[in-house]
Amino acid sequence: MGIVEVSVRKRPFVAILATGDEVVPPGQMAGPGQIRDINSYTVAGLTQQAGGIPVLGGIIADDFGALQAAAKQALAENDMLVMSAGSSVSVRDMTVAVMESLGEPGVLLHGVATRPGKPTIVGVVDGKPVLGLPGNPVSAMVQYDMFGVPAIYHLQGLQTPPRRGLVWAKLTQNIASESGREDYVPARLHDATDGLAATPVFGKSNLIYTLVNADGLLKVPLNKAGLLGGEWVEVRLF
Amino acid sequence: MGIVEVSVRKRPFVAILATGDEVVPPGQMAGPGQIRDINSYTVAGLTQQAGGIPVLGGIIADDFGALQAAAKQALAENDMLVMSAGSSVSVRDMTVAVMESLGEPGVLLHGVATRPGKPTIVGVVDGKPVLGLPGNPVSAMVQYDMFGVPAIYHLQGLQTPPRRGLVWAKLTQNIASESGREDYVPARLHDATDGLAATPVFGKSNLIYTLVNADGLLKVPLNKAGLLGGEWVEVRLF
Repeated sequence: MGIVEVSVRKRPFVAILATGDEVVPPGQMAGPGQIRDINSYTVAGLTQQAGGIPVLGGIIADDFGALQAAAKQALAENDMLVMSAGSSVSVRDMTVAVMESLGEPGVLLHGVATRPGKPTIVGVVDGKPVLGLPGNPVSAMVQYDMFGVPAIYHLQGLQTPPRRGLVWAKLTQNIASESGREDYVPARLHDATDGLAATPVFGKSNLIYTLVNADGLLKVPLNKAGLLGGEWVEVRLF
Repeated sequence: MGIVEVSVRKRPFVAILATGDEVVPPGQMAGPGQIRDINSYTVAGLTQQAGGIPVLGGIIADDFGALQAAAKQALAENDMLVMSAGSSVSVRDMTVAVMESLGEPGVLLHGVATRPGKPTIVGVVDGKPVLGLPGNPVSAMVQYDMFGVPAIYHLQGLQTPPRRGLVWAKLTQNIASESGREDYVPARLHDATDGLAATPVFGKSNLIYTLVNADGLLKVPLNKAGLLGGEWVEVRLF
């Protein structure tokens, strides 16, 4: 049609901070009570996939002043900030306090009715999205996919995420849940005669093998106490 | 797990040549009997999406010597070569002759039992994939998705394409086809109670609005003379 120039949005820079005295870099041997940083890298991967540019800010100690200084600088230099919090309650409280101290309006919500990922913190500071993710790797990925990825699309001017990545599949077995909570269960997909079949991969949210063995996440809606084998379900591909 | 280095394949460089005396660059006004180059850009988009690096070689005149020289240089400097041929039979024959002249084994097949895209040419020269695509924009995209994209995945070491991008949907109306031919029909997707529904968008393969109005391509298998409304079908997302 002869249209050779179009307006585009710039790709957003997303700062990623890992927090926790127990977190060590992936190349370092983890001693007793220590864990290797994984969330910085899964969050960076999802960020890139959604069109953002990840900026890794490293691992910050469990210290209010240190986290506040790192967060303030990261937010000033980037379009969005993600803090992968330690899993203890005191550390989560510190993330909330830091987020509140950065600017207005600060924390918008603390805690979501989903599993995994209950202790998620969502905020906005001076028009920039700020997220506090749970420390468990599966929780962090699920919550980032739910709140971080749409924010990255929004920063690029997309009001609705692209359809790519959502498939329907027939569930192969029952899944128990609780009404009033949205559950995301890792699932493996198989080809079946009438479309795709989804088999849930059960496991705790600190176990990354559930993700390794899965093609995506299966959603149990908020108003359902579970799903029955044979039901059609939505699976969000990784 | 402390694994901080992994072996990776390099991203393949894919040379793209548009051929045809009637083809003009997209920024130029198309006179009588002329058309703007679109295939270089759709092929470049699909190349990038599959992990390849597109290298646009511009528009080459309908001249054996010119096309041979451009193809030879492009193949020497890149990992794969795509020629988007003019739609006349003489031009297609020239693409075959050029491909044969480049090296061994040369042309592997000329013509595939699909619609759109019958006059596709697939070859290998000195271990590098070489493709001759039909000139019609829809045919070129469908055929590149079928033969070019898997070749790009293969060059990156992937034996099977990623599942991302294939969904199952229930067809909303009958589609006529012929047994012995694989048909790809642009389709629009809607959410339905038992999964996704797919509505075909009919139109000739030189009309790009069928792609603009579609979410992906619906496949009518080789051994079927058509599909019935209500059947589950595979849709390949764009």
